[in-house]
Amino acid sequence: MSKKFNNNTAPKSSLILYGRHAVTAAINNPERKIIKLLCSKENAEEAKALCAQRNLSANILNIVERKEIDRLLPQDAVHQGFALYCSELPEYNLEDICILAEQKEDCHILILDQVTDPQNIGAIIRSCVAFDTLALIMQDKNSPTENGAMVKASAGTIEHLPICRVTNLTRAINRLKDAGFWTVGMDGYAQTTIDKMNKKGKIAIIMGSEGKGMRRLVEESCDTTVRLPISEKVESLNVSTAAAIALYEVSKK
Amino acid sequence: MSKKFNNNTAPKSSLILYGRHAVTAAINNPERKIIKLLCSKENAEEAKALCAQRNLSANILNIVERKEIDRLLPQDAVHQGFALYCSELPEYNLEDICILAEQKEDCHILILDQVTDPQNIGAIIRSCVAFDTLALIMQDKNSPTENGAMVKASAGTIEHLPICRVTNLTRAINRLKDAGFWTVGMDGYAQTTIDKMNKKGKIAIIMGSEGKGMRRLVEESCDTTVRLPISEKVESLNVSTAAAIALYEVSKK
Repeated sequence: MSKKFNNNTAPKSSLILYGRHAVTAAINNPERKIIKLLCSKENAEEAKALCAQRNLSANILNIVERKEIDRLLPQDAVHQGFALYCSELPEYNLEDICILAEQKEDCHILILDQVTDPQNIGAIIRSCVAFDTLALIMQDKNSPTENGAMVKASAGTIEHLPICRVTNLTRAINRLKDAGFWTVGMDGYAQTTIDKMNKKGKIAIIMGSEGKGMRRLVEESCDTTVRLPISEKVESLNVSTAAAIALYEVSKK
Repeated sequence: MSKKFNNNTAPKSSLILYGRHAVTAAINNPERKIIKLLCSKENAEEAKALCAQRNLSANILNIVERKEIDRLLPQDAVHQGFALYCSELPEYNLEDICILAEQKEDCHILILDQVTDPQNIGAIIRSCVAFDTLALIMQDKNSPTENGAMVKASAGTIEHLPICRVTNLTRAINRLKDAGFWTVGMDGYAQTTIDKMNKKGKIAIIMGSEGKGMRRLVEESCDTTVRLPISEKVESLNVSTAAAIALYEVSKK
């Protein structure tokens, strides 16, 4: 994604990413400052080619023993012999998102309320990119910032998605309404199923955490609520599965 | 699900399950032989109530230290203070599935080719139950048998889904065609998107593993192939996400 906005888009502190897809995509994203690439011997040629593509200086690449990468990462991290120190992605603010939306007739964004698991958020990011979601909005306080597990779970797709953190979701929903968005909360008790809703125009989908759902004030600020048509035999779907289906449905015009 | 079939339905060897949802659902399934329930002190009342519901004898329940449960399970197992020794679920054979299908006009089943990760299979089982899938069919050789991680990832929904393992998927697909199923393979290169396919009647959806897809002979035995309409920015979706969307779409009549 190109850096068009002036607000809040300066690179922030650095982080460590891992996994072939995640690292490759990060290196190929010109908005990332690349600090140091570690790779195991069997990946040396692939890593050299990656660095050459981006014109990175030779001292960026460090070919090391696999166990040296193991030591840097959480115990269960499947790194496939790739680890990368780089800058965080620039974050977008809500006005940036509204500007992006102005240029579109039909588009959708996803808002997550209290979803906290980085794996779930990474999986949701992958679905957002798969279904051309314009942006992902989360609350700044109760959602994790970018980290290695999230980027890995996104399979590198996080490089393509504008992400915005806001202090107050209710206020953000109201701002989006002003910008022409129809705001639709996902609620297991809603009367209408998602396939029956009008999908024309600008749509914001709001989802709460698995089990708990949206907080009351967030739900009350939505224009309407819809549900996924699931069997009574299951209480709920995993939040990333539910998000994927909602984004699939809303992306069909 | 009730035990209506004579073939292959005898309980097999025992296994250890964990997690509140998985253990509760297993105890509530009369087809499971319950051998031993371990729970931590804070779950004692809940566990006693569970055992009473099923009329289990008092010596089934063991209230233990949390770390005793830790020791029994894989390191990263989130057990929530519940572990259960019980019999495996009875497996169905393909003729059982055909008999179940005979009674239905509209129904769908899911066939997985070479999907090996128990977490993915568990998540897929949860989606199958959510979208009233008649049965899940896998190859016996290249897919894991029931285990704790799979049951946990299914959030206990595995108790509601007939699962069938076959030696030869191509032969199984041909048998299903004879039983009136329209066999539809999921393939990222297919011309038609899944929302455009005819969803009336009996449908079998066939999915391969992430990245690799179906094996050639399996794909060639399908009546047709369809794809999910995803952006070029992502190579593929996670197999459990793709399965959820396919099952959601095919369950809409």
